Amino acid sequence: MTESLPHARGDAAGCANACQASLKERYKAVRETTEALAAPLSAEDQTIQSMTAASPAKWHRAHTTWFFETFLLRPRLPGYAQFDESYHYLFNSYYEAFGERLARAQRGMITRPSAGEVADYRAHVDAAMQRLLDDCPEDTATLVELGLHHEQQHQELLLTDIKHAFSLNPTEPVYSRRERNPAANDAAPQLGWHEIAAGAYTIGHDGAGFAFDNEGPAHRVLLNDARVATRPVSIGEYLDFMADDGYRRPEFWHADGWEAVQAEGWRAPAYWRHDEDLGWTAYTLHGRLRLRQDEPVTHVSLYEAAAYAAWAGKRLPDEAEWEVAARTWPHPNEHQPALNLHPRPLARGFCQDVWEWTGSAYLPYPGFRPASGAVGEYNGKFMVNQMVLRGRSCATPPGHERPSYRNFFWPGARWQFSGFRLAEDA
Amino acid sequence: MTESLPHARGDAAGCANACQASLKERYKAVRETTEALAAPLSAEDQTIQSMTAASPAKWHRAHTTWFFETFLLRPRLPGYAQFDESYHYLFNSYYEAFGERLARAQRGMITRPSAGEVADYRAHVDAAMQRLLDDCPEDTATLVELGLHHEQQHQELLLTDIKHAFSLNPTEPVYSRRERNPAANDAAPQLGWHEIAAGAYTIGHDGAGFAFDNEGPAHRVLLNDARVATRPVSIGEYLDFMADDGYRRPEFWHADGWEAVQAEGWRAPAYWRHDEDLGWTAYTLHGRLRLRQDEPVTHVSLYEAAAYAAWAGKRLPDEAEWEVAARTWPHPNEHQPALNLHPRPLARGFCQDVWEWTGSAYLPYPGFRPASGAVGEYNGKFMVNQMVLRGRSCATPPGHERPSYRNFFWPGARWQFSGFRLAEDA
Amino acid sequence: MTESLPHARGDAAGCANACQASLKERYKAVRETTEALAAPLSAEDQTIQSMTAASPAKWHRAHTTWFFETFLLRPRLPGYAQFDESYHYLFNSYYEAFGERLARAQRGMITRPSAGEVADYRAHVDAAMQRLLDDCPEDTATLVELGLHHEQQHQELLLTDIKHAFSLNPTEPVYSRRERNPAANDAAPQLGWHEIAAGAYTIGHDGAGFAFDNEGPAHRVLLNDARVATRPVSIGEYLDFMADDGYRRPEFWHADGWEAVQAEGWRAPAYWRHDEDLGWTAYTLHGRLRLRQDEPVTHVSLYEAAAYAAWAGKRLPDEAEWEVAARTWPHPNEHQPALNLHPRPLARGFCQDVWEWTGSAYLPYPGFRPASGAVGEYNGKFMVNQMVLRGRSCATPPGHERPSYRNFFWPGARWQFSGFRLAEDA
Amino acid sequence: MTESLPHARGDAAGCANACQASLKERYKAVRETTEALAAPLSAEDQTIQSMTAASPAKWHRAHTTWFFETFLLRPRLPGYAQFDESYHYLFNSYYEAFGERLARAQRGMITRPSAGEVADYRAHVDAAMQRLLDDCPEDTATLVELGLHHEQQHQELLLTDIKHAFSLNPTEPVYSRRERNPAANDAAPQLGWHEIAAGAYTIGHDGAGFAFDNEGPAHRVLLNDARVATRPVSIGEYLDFMADDGYRRPEFWHADGWEAVQAEGWRAPAYWRHDEDLGWTAYTLHGRLRLRQDEPVTHVSLYEAAAYAAWAGKRLPDEAEWEVAARTWPHPNEHQPALNLHPRPLARGFCQDVWEWTGSAYLPYPGFRPASGAVGEYNGKFMVNQMVLRGRSCATPPGHERPSYRNFFWPGARWQFSGFRLAEDA
Repeated sequence: MTESLPHARGDAAGCANACQASLKERYKAVRETTEALAAPLSAEDQTIQSMTAASPAKWHRAHTTWFFETFLLRPRLPGYAQFDESYHYLFNSYYEAFGERLARAQRGMITRPSAGEVADYRAHVDAAMQRLLDDCPEDTATLVELGLHHEQQHQELLLTDIKHAFSLNPTEPVYSRRERNPAANDAAPQLGWHEIAAGAYTIGHDGAGFAFDNEGPAHRVLLNDARVATRPVSIGEYLDFMADDGYRRPEFWHADGWEAVQAEGWRAPAYWRHDEDLGWTAYTLHGRLRLRQDEPVTHVSLYEAAAYAAWAGKRLPDEAEWEVAARTWPHPNEHQPALNLHPRPLARGFCQDVWEWTGSAYLPYPGFRPASGAVGEYNGKFMVNQMVLRGRSCATPPGHERPSYRNFFWPGARWQFSGFRLAEDA
Repeated sequence: MTESLPHARGDAAGCANACQASLKERYKAVRETTEALAAPLSAEDQTIQSMTAASPAKWHRAHTTWFFETFLLRPRLPGYAQFDESYHYLFNSYYEAFGERLARAQRGMITRPSAGEVADYRAHVDAAMQRLLDDCPEDTATLVELGLHHEQQHQELLLTDIKHAFSLNPTEPVYSRRERNPAANDAAPQLGWHEIAAGAYTIGHDGAGFAFDNEGPAHRVLLNDARVATRPVSIGEYLDFMADDGYRRPEFWHADGWEAVQAEGWRAPAYWRHDEDLGWTAYTLHGRLRLRQDEPVTHVSLYEAAAYAAWAGKRLPDEAEWEVAARTWPHPNEHQPALNLHPRPLARGFCQDVWEWTGSAYLPYPGFRPASGAVGEYNGKFMVNQMVLRGRSCATPPGHERPSYRNFFWPGARWQFSGFRLAEDA
Repeated sequence: MTESLPHARGDAAGCANACQASLKERYKAVRETTEALAAPLSAEDQTIQSMTAASPAKWHRAHTTWFFETFLLRPRLPGYAQFDESYHYLFNSYYEAFGERLARAQRGMITRPSAGEVADYRAHVDAAMQRLLDDCPEDTATLVELGLHHEQQHQELLLTDIKHAFSLNPTEPVYSRRERNPAANDAAPQLGWHEIAAGAYTIGHDGAGFAFDNEGPAHRVLLNDARVATRPVSIGEYLDFMADDGYRRPEFWHADGWEAVQAEGWRAPAYWRHDEDLGWTAYTLHGRLRLRQDEPVTHVSLYEAAAYAAWAGKRLPDEAEWEVAARTWPHPNEHQPALNLHPRPLARGFCQDVWEWTGSAYLPYPGFRPASGAVGEYNGKFMVNQMVLRGRSCATPPGHERPSYRNFFWPGARWQFSGFRLAEDA
Repeated sequence: MTESLPHARGDAAGCANACQASLKERYKAVRETTEALAAPLSAEDQTIQSMTAASPAKWHRAHTTWFFETFLLRPRLPGYAQFDESYHYLFNSYYEAFGERLARAQRGMITRPSAGEVADYRAHVDAAMQRLLDDCPEDTATLVELGLHHEQQHQELLLTDIKHAFSLNPTEPVYSRRERNPAANDAAPQLGWHEIAAGAYTIGHDGAGFAFDNEGPAHRVLLNDARVATRPVSIGEYLDFMADDGYRRPEFWHADGWEAVQAEGWRAPAYWRHDEDLGWTAYTLHGRLRLRQDEPVTHVSLYEAAAYAAWAGKRLPDEAEWEVAARTWPHPNEHQPALNLHPRPLARGFCQDVWEWTGSAYLPYPGFRPASGAVGEYNGKFMVNQMVLRGRSCATPPGHERPSYRNFFWPGARWQFSGFRLAEDA
């Protein structure tokens, strides 16, 4: 069940040349969006950590700030006064190059600094960043841009992590009131297929505008004739899989997936519940809602996506097919020209996007070289044991999406807004 | 390293006849003490749970309130309006008779209700309790008394639990400023021995004044000639054990204790740390402090207590010996007449008491019968796998101590203010 | 479901004065019994370890031999040639005083030495022991006696451990053919009560004949008026508890017991299974058998015993009550004069005994002092976290029983032949 | 440290047309090899399971037999009498289509059937197979061929699994005596680089001769200019990495790899040990041996391989590069024409091969379709969470190697004979 979530108010469109004026404004907009996303959360909400893989909202707010302090202000702003030395230990995420840091599983123990002190920290760093941006050489601008995209990633995680935490509270807190009409529960639009002709294609980031290092180098790939679905699998379709005993038939599952089904007792996507009277409902950031059959299914693992595909006699697209389809989509949407493989097809005014699992492992592209220094730890060291997701979700900040964007998670992860679309050989 | 901690301001002396006026006052005093203990904690501090065995401060505040609402107000106050139905699920601790409740390990996920809403809950219940106490029959008074002693138990747990949680924060938060002089680090007073003559003695609560059900029935026990130390083992003495490789010599340890030493990497009591420059220090609720050799050692498990005793060629007293010694102590203190086995021997104006591990398993006394109904779940169901501690600690509310009082924890528990004294056969 | 198991052929009666001739014979008899018990097991059967708490049969055979080699032959037989140096590491059980040893959980990895080599080891040690026993001073005889009782303990464990291992093999191997008639499934004999009058009694070993150190010193205890059942709880009675939802009603259970019920999914004693057509059956060393209502229930934990007692409105006897009842039993059996609290009451020619959980924690008796040196590790270090069982089971070697005998296991252990009888205050 | 291990005596060369006579002979040869490999193992050795990922030798012998009984004899040999019905449950590995089977972790509990009974089972099935092969249609021959390759896979696992089990026995059993000279400890031959020119290449099995389903379909891939090392990394080179603190510098490691280093305490490849006097040695199937600097390093995980490559400023080849290099190797060896990327370069008469980790995730090739029916479970369901290894090891049966062969394991696995070679962009 997807969710319409608040986004940055400012114009967050790409800032390719990173001219100073616009970068200062963009910095301000992104940073304000983070605070706007955290605003509905109490100090208590922001403190807890519901599982090792998730982080407290307060930590997201502080860690993104630590990034600017560590990579920009301390090395590049003369006379910058560090806000608090202990923050370096508390809010480093995984940069081994910076030495010791708080164990990930202990992030939920940090009641102090308080949410208010983190706000002060953000203000302190923001003020210094505005000074730094007054006279900002190209390589500084590039790092700032990276910091902003990094912060946008954490904006999405802030939402998925608090959703997971809230879901464990029997009172099922509401993050934000629902903004949409309780529209009729229609079937999803008919499923179409986008044809890919066999041949060599270029995928990966081509150098214009910002991209993470893992999106390049752009390179040629050979594809076979194939078809990629025009929209993600819907909740209605997924319910058919469940009704056909999909969670009880091992023949559709990866061996590791079947083990997860047994060990975790999976019978439906995460956050779903079945009651005698209400039928299937899902906990969402707007509270518990009835399922809508026309929406894309979400909060499924790669294992579930692959099992559904096997049941349907199809497969998942690999990431090259996905990107090629996204780039050649025939009916461009004006604002997001080529990408919009899933132009909110069912939307009646609301975002319903989901990240889409692909059949590709998250590995370096040919010729990939991590940046030198600590920033180089950014992506490369995660390139094992994870699978690529493409697209964006309803929680992805606008402007943070690209046809070449590579998201990645463990195949058993379900707390992201993850769905999938089908593909097949032609 | 023991700590001087804030206590109830009111007179909390026994209220044997539970006359209404004094019971109302006593109710008020105990309830206010809880709030005073929580006052230094932010909403964030009050929310987290650092391990399954501990609970959030907010939960302690709400659960003790739930006790009054559930056992007193709902059955006995006509027209009482329940504050919030969901609280019944959230703040029940272990009373199976009341059905489903939040899993213990999930208490740290309850960001909502907020600390402020719990304050409202307390006020709502307190107001209703004052009405109930206006005309309060004997059996109601008895239950109220139980509720107040129950709340005092949670006052101590609130302190030990937040200490554990704070200890995991690298910034080592200070709960309260230290109130004592940095007195000279003297040796502890000379160790004396209190003689017990062989014979039959009565132990257990004799019926006058309040006691928990597990303190009775009073009954006769046979003791041999024995000696019980006049004070707990001091930090200085414990350092001798450590210096003599106490943590590396299996011959002193229970098999399960030795396994804990290996598995947990114990090399010292909990919260202690050794630095090149500072030597041994301990994290306390006043922050990190240097050890004082004259204070009783605390935050040790039963395993450590027993290993020390084996090293010293002594043993732990059993709970009957302890109680007999406490009751016959030759130099009564006016306020705590017979109990004061450890009359703050080293105190220069500060409480330094510790709970004392005994060699006795926590089992029912002969003839013990749990009360009927849900209140009967209070103690009996924990009578396995735990060991008895006697005395009181610096965190025990004044008036909450009795020679017959039986505290109990798993032999590996270290987060309570637990120390021990020696005994030997005469 | 209890089992009739093979026992030592020789006369294993007490050998109080340890005269050499009888000690040599007794040594031979006990050692041969071990081999007879292992005889139905293949080399493969003898090798595996089904859980950390259990040991391979081959290990039992070798470890008991190691005891004689280590405590008797090496220090006391001039010119004794150690069989194999590596065995010292492999077959030490828990004597820390002897330094490093194989981790307990790795005992099942010892395919070499083979079962045959262990037989050679036993023969080597037995031959040397006969030489040692040719001229055997008192203190040597005492140690030999200890070694023989130690070996008898392992004889019982050999049976309970292989039963556990076999139970995990879907083919349910038969250790020995059933020797008894499929007698009618009668009700158990009527339950009577043995009265204990309040007063002081002596329990513990009094010095005549062999006893383990944990059985002494004999000492006085005070008992209240009480009644102890004349036989253990039967399978028929236990089925009533199950039929009354005993495993689904938390009010009868210790908190830790209820947790075990949930975590382990207990719905019946260990080894029981319910099939549509056969009803309840139990895996036994004779294969899978239908339950007999008149037999004592066995393979229950202390938690289950205590829950049954709570359901029945009774309690478990403590170990002093049990021993007093055993010593004063009115109808002595000639061979086991006072002990026979459970004179195979239902026996139609078969042993049906079970170890009986008591309500007593396994702790040192007043004045207990472990022996000095490595032998002193024998019992004392286990005196925490375990509960006392009294009596003997169908797997206990004849002659290995005493009214003062203290067996002990963790309250959750179910793989021993453990049952229980009821008691109540008079 | 690689090992020279016994292999099938017969000619196991490819049997492309599967004519009956040669298939019967080949069947006999492969089956005899399995028994020859198990011959040095006692019944006890064959029974134990040292970790969930490994299987007992007896189980390998029975499971490969079960394959022929299940897929060939029962459906295709009229009048075939199943050897023992329970074996279907015991020796099914993971074919969910055949329903319930013994949990993988319980394989070490199967002491019965005995090693001898498994020999009988093998003889029974072999006799029936010879009858079946008397008149063997094409599709039967294909399945037999699959069964033989399947058995060869288990031959290698039998060796790696028993090595792991033996390594846990402190006596370090010797599987087979060492057959080689203790030759001088020379440096490895100079490292050369095999050039790959950018372009499109075909990889995957092309249809001639046997291959597993996962090796196809053959398909085109685009490669960049690259260089692949002419031999695997040697022990001497790996020691340099260790000497340069390779196991203590997180910057070289995947995040998951670094976590494994910490959690498992890795300081060297599996089976290595450092002693004051001997220096580094390795446990091998010939017993503990000193390391030879000129041999390929083995028993390393993918994490270690990748960390070494990062330290060396190189990378691992992906599986397409590896296969292209293998197919175009300029100096063909007569017997293994194109494959021999590692023509036993250091061999002085001994095999020293290792499986080589690649940088490729184990995923289906474009157009891959698993076979229908239970045989189709063979490979597809493992295509997640694992990495591809290429080549063969000293334990791989001759004839079981192909340039297109795809072996696969979890990136943390170390008990296989796994090494790696370097690659770099040109």
